[in-house]
Amino acid sequence: MKITDFVGLSIGLLALLPVYSQAQPVMEHVEPGFWWVGMKTDKLQIMLHGKQIASYTPRINYPGVRIKAIHKLSNPNYLFLDLQIAPASRPGKFDIRMQQGSQQFAIPYELKAREKGAAERRGFGPADVILNLMPDRFANGDTSNDRLPGFADKLDRNDASAGRHGGDLKGIRDHLDYIAGMGYTMLWPTPIVENNQQTYSYHGYAATDYYKVDARLGSNEEYRQLIAEAKKQGIGVIQDIVLNHIGDGHWWMKDLPSKDWLSYNGEFVPTYHARTTASDPYASAIDKKNFTQGWFEVHMPDMNQRNPLVANYQIQNTIWWIEYAGLAGIRADTYGYSDPGFLSEWSRRVMQEYPQLTLVGEEWSDNPNLVAHWLRGHKNANGYISHMPSMMDYPLHDTLRKALVAPENLHSGFATLYEALVNDQLYPKPSAMVLFEGNHDVSRLYSALDEDLDLFKMAITYVATMPRTPQFYYGTEILMTSTKHRDDGAFRKDFPGGWAGDAVNAFTGAGLNAKQLEAQAFVKKLLSWRKTQSSIHNGKLMHFAPQDGIYVYFRYDQKRKIMVVMNKNTTATELATARFAEVLPASAKAKDVFSGQEFELAQKIKVPARGVLLLEIM
Amino acid sequence: MKITDFVGLSIGLLALLPVYSQAQPVMEHVEPGFWWVGMKTDKLQIMLHGKQIASYTPRINYPGVRIKAIHKLSNPNYLFLDLQIAPASRPGKFDIRMQQGSQQFAIPYELKAREKGAAERRGFGPADVILNLMPDRFANGDTSNDRLPGFADKLDRNDASAGRHGGDLKGIRDHLDYIAGMGYTMLWPTPIVENNQQTYSYHGYAATDYYKVDARLGSNEEYRQLIAEAKKQGIGVIQDIVLNHIGDGHWWMKDLPSKDWLSYNGEFVPTYHARTTASDPYASAIDKKNFTQGWFEVHMPDMNQRNPLVANYQIQNTIWWIEYAGLAGIRADTYGYSDPGFLSEWSRRVMQEYPQLTLVGEEWSDNPNLVAHWLRGHKNANGYISHMPSMMDYPLHDTLRKALVAPENLHSGFATLYEALVNDQLYPKPSAMVLFEGNHDVSRLYSALDEDLDLFKMAITYVATMPRTPQFYYGTEILMTSTKHRDDGAFRKDFPGGWAGDAVNAFTGAGLNAKQLEAQAFVKKLLSWRKTQSSIHNGKLMHFAPQDGIYVYFRYDQKRKIMVVMNKNTTATELATARFAEVLPASAKAKDVFSGQEFELAQKIKVPARGVLLLEIM
Repeated sequence: MKITDFVGLSIGLLALLPVYSQAQPVMEHVEPGFWWVGMKTDKLQIMLHGKQIASYTPRINYPGVRIKAIHKLSNPNYLFLDLQIAPASRPGKFDIRMQQGSQQFAIPYELKAREKGAAERRGFGPADVILNLMPDRFANGDTSNDRLPGFADKLDRNDASAGRHGGDLKGIRDHLDYIAGMGYTMLWPTPIVENNQQTYSYHGYAATDYYKVDARLGSNEEYRQLIAEAKKQGIGVIQDIVLNHIGDGHWWMKDLPSKDWLSYNGEFVPTYHARTTASDPYASAIDKKNFTQGWFEVHMPDMNQRNPLVANYQIQNTIWWIEYAGLAGIRADTYGYSDPGFLSEWSRRVMQEYPQLTLVGEEWSDNPNLVAHWLRGHKNANGYISHMPSMMDYPLHDTLRKALVAPENLHSGFATLYEALVNDQLYPKPSAMVLFEGNHDVSRLYSALDEDLDLFKMAITYVATMPRTPQFYYGTEILMTSTKHRDDGAFRKDFPGGWAGDAVNAFTGAGLNAKQLEAQAFVKKLLSWRKTQSSIHNGKLMHFAPQDGIYVYFRYDQKRKIMVVMNKNTTATELATARFAEVLPASAKAKDVFSGQEFELAQKIKVPARGVLLLEIM
Repeated sequence: MKITDFVGLSIGLLALLPVYSQAQPVMEHVEPGFWWVGMKTDKLQIMLHGKQIASYTPRINYPGVRIKAIHKLSNPNYLFLDLQIAPASRPGKFDIRMQQGSQQFAIPYELKAREKGAAERRGFGPADVILNLMPDRFANGDTSNDRLPGFADKLDRNDASAGRHGGDLKGIRDHLDYIAGMGYTMLWPTPIVENNQQTYSYHGYAATDYYKVDARLGSNEEYRQLIAEAKKQGIGVIQDIVLNHIGDGHWWMKDLPSKDWLSYNGEFVPTYHARTTASDPYASAIDKKNFTQGWFEVHMPDMNQRNPLVANYQIQNTIWWIEYAGLAGIRADTYGYSDPGFLSEWSRRVMQEYPQLTLVGEEWSDNPNLVAHWLRGHKNANGYISHMPSMMDYPLHDTLRKALVAPENLHSGFATLYEALVNDQLYPKPSAMVLFEGNHDVSRLYSALDEDLDLFKMAITYVATMPRTPQFYYGTEILMTSTKHRDDGAFRKDFPGGWAGDAVNAFTGAGLNAKQLEAQAFVKKLLSWRKTQSSIHNGKLMHFAPQDGIYVYFRYDQKRKIMVVMNKNTTATELATARFAEVLPASAKAKDVFSGQEFELAQKIKVPARGVLLLEIM
């Protein structure tokens, strides 16, 4: 965030005030721009960026605050101040007085009061349903930010794969009622920080400013407003962050703090994505280095988190956003690509500040051992300690999609889904894992399931009823389609109704076909029902080995039992219930959540062809 | 083993001696037929089987031996005696005197002296190479046992899938020089105990007598002789046993000791093979029961190991064979299908008697978490404790075959082989795991690799140079072929040269084609070389993420470094060596074990098209 950007913000109290001298250096950045009193850690490191700033000596005169150390780098335009903030310090404003001989000037700074309960904020969990959406592709609520000066990557809705389409925070805010109405309780937008890149700026994974919302999406203040309004609707917001890399349009790239600010001293060496090196007992040092220090892409310089100033900058940035915006969680992109020691410290410090928050990391592997490596409480053979409460459940996501379209036999179909859960023994808390039907990086669920609405309903039901924190992708509910092979443009189409003049409007239902309306109603009914189901949120799971194309499982607690039956047969099938006696009461009756139909379960139950039953046992 | 069978054996000292009375009951079985003094456990349980034997009272008058308890079952034809054998007891013979009113008779028994070092016998490990063969299909050394009275399943070499072909222990003994010459140091024949079944008796996995070698293979004494002669050639023998089930031709089936001798009280209920239930935190009790108590097959009754008499019978039987025959190890078939509590106790007691022996179990799953569940020292989430030193490495076996035929890219081919080793963190001792190129249950390696001799050489080299205990299947070395899909007849063809009149003789090489001779020489050279390679047996592994179709790894210890290079490219490829600097000395030279060619490794090395190099670094 540039110092000048603060001027226009209501929270911008940092405009440079030249009080002592006319010949002061031009300050470019002061980061973090402000901080808070009453944090668990009493330390704050401020990065000052301005021409020859390192030649100045800083002083602070504020009760409880003192400069413990300063750090100079090879580039004299940077100075890092280590502040110690005594626990009893009061909120307030003060100057950081900078002096070089007779030259003096002041940098105004503020320590704010924390919002009540900020440290105790609760993250997301199995009682929630997360919606992942891409702000640029969801809804264009403010056309005035579509074309802004100073941004090279221009609006182009005709460019599906690379172009910006104009969606923004206002678009999300305008449709919070739809999101809440569908039953989502958490919102995970892809990254919202500035991506002032030459191309491919729409996806947000190439930050050019770690402290500023991209102006084409809105302002920092609009982001806060979105989160505040979402909260009113019962929706928390999860911020998507990228620790591993930045965009090559980042302002650092024009004036690097030091050669070792970036991996490989700023030279492009691609990563070979050898993600197993993080825990492989036989990996070579050069491959371990390449995985974490190799660049994700030529336009995405890799952050050197072995540099403690870089590490601390990123840790503080995460805490700053949580505190400033009022977040419910963090989703950390390309998690394992960062330095493992840094990740341990990053997760430790964030969780230390917010012990009940949820952080979820992306480890894109179908190997549960790799995913478990990053989980808090998992005992790693190599001794690695993590503090991550949650990881994305790529292994089960993968298995679910494959299992549904595969033929049914002892080694295929439901059998693989059933068998996959044996790996839950690896996860200290399986229900904290985020199980997703889709996201911005994978093919659309409906397409992956060969556009089979029956299988679609099974997938959705499964994701919503497993001991997991479920996550959906925008547009899944209206059967949006894509290629099966990787094609980001196809995976990230505009949500219909998000743009003025759209022929179809999924928010109102206008123009949706019958199948889409059916799917939308199905998801809505399921997620609304799910909100009050304690046995789904925290209950036990018992499942039964699939037989004859039918998979049955129960979620249950002291209060309630839910029975899920999925039938892949093309004819209605009679299912004897005696096998479920250890969990099913002898003379049980049940009601299907979807159809409202009542069933006697004493002896057998007729399961509709290719049907899914969600039975409340009475 | 029937009591009458002992008469013909030099070790048969148990012939029923009617000393007191003429009206004694006809004793059918006394098992184990003898035992030893000086075992770690001082307990022995003898099963007596004879008409109305339960109405008799047993007495023993032998120094140090006393009857602690007797067990009667619902069937009066059985009596179980619990003997306590004091540690100071001397070897010797005595009578078990049986009395019922005035009726008396004696059952002669013997406690033998143990062979020197019997308790300290060493099992197999990473310095060994195991050969798996099927005695019926390897070589017919004794045609006099081809057609024996009392056996329903007759010789039929024309029946590839179900027929007996006449191979026997003598056939193996005749070719120990070939086996030793190839470089194998351990021999794992499929089960040798009697399988007097109506059909499919050749494979040995349906025991009809736990204490007796099938007469069509040879006698107990011939088995001992085979093992003694193998030992002279440096070859240990691993006995294949089946704890889970017996054949329905077992003598028990005509006079079951009790209803609960078999699972489901002797009724056929098939297992659904839901092997994950052993450690799945969500498995239902009924599925857990079905997996371990369900019958493997209608002709294979499932042993009820929850019955402590059954459990003890099986534990003693394993120990009896190790002690009697002088085994180097046990391979336990269908391992997880047995009762888990029983398996824990079985492995504990066998390892207690023979702390340095190796037991290896079969868990046919590509999920390393399932396999690791059974390993000694693996911390299971459900608290399960096992004492198994080794398991068959199905996951890596599977990955190896798939990886070699798959295209090369970041997510396929060598990459999957490289990534698979991350799972070694699950294994307390990876080198104890048995990595096999094939066995009697899977397609022939050469066929699985699309009859590609280059890939074949890579597979063989990999199996022989990983930190594993390698295992080969008979005939692999001469490129025996099969279907790719499951077809036991195709997987278990007769070894050419094992039968008089065979047109091809693999033992002499007569009739083998050029490729077969090349493969045979390749395997022989590799295994012979391997015998003296400490870095392969116990050294470290470092591997490098595959790049451009080339996979490189090193095995090394203080003394020596071995570099393996596999190249899937169809042209010779120059490989820069700088990347390997952390393990490769700067000015290294090397010699390829296969070709003898010398290489300079200072800068680059030319790897032959689709070649494998096995380089001794000098």
